[in-house]
Amino acid sequence: MDGVAELVDRVVAGEPRAIGRMISWVEDGSPRLPEAMALVAARPGRAHVVGVTGPPGVGKSTMTSALVSAWRTRGDRVGVIAVDPSSPFSGGALLGDRIRMHEHATDPGVFIRSMASRGHLGGLAATTPQAVRILAAAGFDIVIVETVGVGQSEVDVAASADTTLVLLAPGMGDGIQAAKAGILEVGDVLCVNKADREGAQASAREVRQMLELSERGPQDWQPVVVTSVASRGEIDEVLAALDAHREFAQTTGVDRVRRHRRAVDEVTAVTLAQIERRLATIDAAFVADLADQVASGDLDPFTAADRLRAHLGIDADGAMPG
Amino acid sequence: MDGVAELVDRVVAGEPRAIGRMISWVEDGSPRLPEAMALVAARPGRAHVVGVTGPPGVGKSTMTSALVSAWRTRGDRVGVIAVDPSSPFSGGALLGDRIRMHEHATDPGVFIRSMASRGHLGGLAATTPQAVRILAAAGFDIVIVETVGVGQSEVDVAASADTTLVLLAPGMGDGIQAAKAGILEVGDVLCVNKADREGAQASAREVRQMLELSERGPQDWQPVVVTSVASRGEIDEVLAALDAHREFAQTTGVDRVRRHRRAVDEVTAVTLAQIERRLATIDAAFVADLADQVASGDLDPFTAADRLRAHLGIDADGAMPG
Repeated sequence: MDGVAELVDRVVAGEPRAIGRMISWVEDGSPRLPEAMALVAARPGRAHVVGVTGPPGVGKSTMTSALVSAWRTRGDRVGVIAVDPSSPFSGGALLGDRIRMHEHATDPGVFIRSMASRGHLGGLAATTPQAVRILAAAGFDIVIVETVGVGQSEVDVAASADTTLVLLAPGMGDGIQAAKAGILEVGDVLCVNKADREGAQASAREVRQMLELSERGPQDWQPVVVTSVASRGEIDEVLAALDAHREFAQTTGVDRVRRHRRAVDEVTAVTLAQIERRLATIDAAFVADLADQVASGDLDPFTAADRLRAHLGIDADGAMPG
Repeated sequence: MDGVAELVDRVVAGEPRAIGRMISWVEDGSPRLPEAMALVAARPGRAHVVGVTGPPGVGKSTMTSALVSAWRTRGDRVGVIAVDPSSPFSGGALLGDRIRMHEHATDPGVFIRSMASRGHLGGLAATTPQAVRILAAAGFDIVIVETVGVGQSEVDVAASADTTLVLLAPGMGDGIQAAKAGILEVGDVLCVNKADREGAQASAREVRQMLELSERGPQDWQPVVVTSVASRGEIDEVLAALDAHREFAQTTGVDRVRRHRRAVDEVTAVTLAQIERRLATIDAAFVADLADQVASGDLDPFTAADRLRAHLGIDADGAMPG
């Protein structure tokens, strides 16, 4: 009944409860996860991964919902991972209750899952790619990763998608704030949402000007700046721009480069999470002794790290880049 | 002229330019940083570290500024590290221009520095404690770490302070949103700012009710919920609550426990950052080959991580906790 292989079979068959359960294994760091992920790896799926990020209040969840509707109309099955504490999709992350699925609740071609943004070993960099992998194995054509665009890990996770959509809204400090948060640079498509409000065109102009400052080669994708009113389903420009980027990426091989990059990040994150767990368990006493010396000022953190690596047997050249 | 020892001497003497330069070394991962941090470790200072966090728009920077004024009146020297893309203090993080220091610009007893929230190896967990350490060595009595309370790394950094202040504001979704983001639980003091607005007392009540749900022993600190209008300098309740927590922590030894915990986190973060760098340099080809196999579905990320640890010579028990 609870066999790992059977669960994976049910995931591959697209069963929502099996998918949800396996994503819980990712969140909880279940001992059965490595075996399950090995089985999932053999069924990689072909999902196109779209990252949606932006500051709080720009309408990310509304946009996600509108994108789901549009892609469903085309016949695509769509999975959503919402790593966004301000998202209504993420209501379940707090109290463990079921996700509010809004208008997509009864659509078997849609799966929406929230993930808490804190508390997982290795962090979002280790857990989110695994959740994406599970949805891909489950046969979803498109997987949306929605993250709040304020936060180191959160922005990085959205930025590692095949195509990244950065949402902004007029009158929020706009491009300047977004640039400060480092999110303009990760957008393949930048969209000023809530374009029925005053200042939307000015915001779009401002974003275009800021993008002109960044250096790109003639072969590179040129980020597209569009506007939308997601709450009214007015997202045609966004859809066209996302399609254009997808086609560009597939034609030029940029998508393979990104997938490779994502795999590098994932393998690195999982490895570091395992080493972190080891430091917190097997090596805990050794680390505690070093920490005592650091806390008392007898040792600096770099020398402590050198000793800890020596203890681990990593003959790493831990020197800072010269 | 550029000797590391001389720079550290100037830092210890409290010279703002030397302090700023050494924090830049932290941001840039300068090769001179380990030597400098070793010298700084011998002069640990006695700073009390206060974390200030909360959702965007609750008035964190205004509160920070008001706290600085209040503590200056007592005669304390105050350093501020602002890791907050929406903070006016962080204006410098984007364009490299000087920090706007507002009313404290000309006060030699105040040092304010923004740090970008992305792009540093090892992330905020590795860099922020080093910046705090530098300000402590420079003789600041209090160091405020202001972070935006949306984001895994950002919340964790504020939560590792000696005393953590979580700010909220009425009419923002309030406690529910904050709880979703996981920030209620990290507050020693929770403050509903902008208390001149409607709903402040209701928000405070709601936060108190949510806190009652969390389990604490009779010996533990009981989080205090207060209100303020930081923009008018009305922060007496906040100051009293922060003082009470500080005294509690010093009397009970909780502060030593936190400092130890912070040192454990710092040593762990620096070590993982060094290993991460090694994976990205010396081991890059090995990682790339694993990533190719993961991207093509020939290998799962856990098996890849096992092989990578074997390659590093870490005989870690990388098993998930059972």
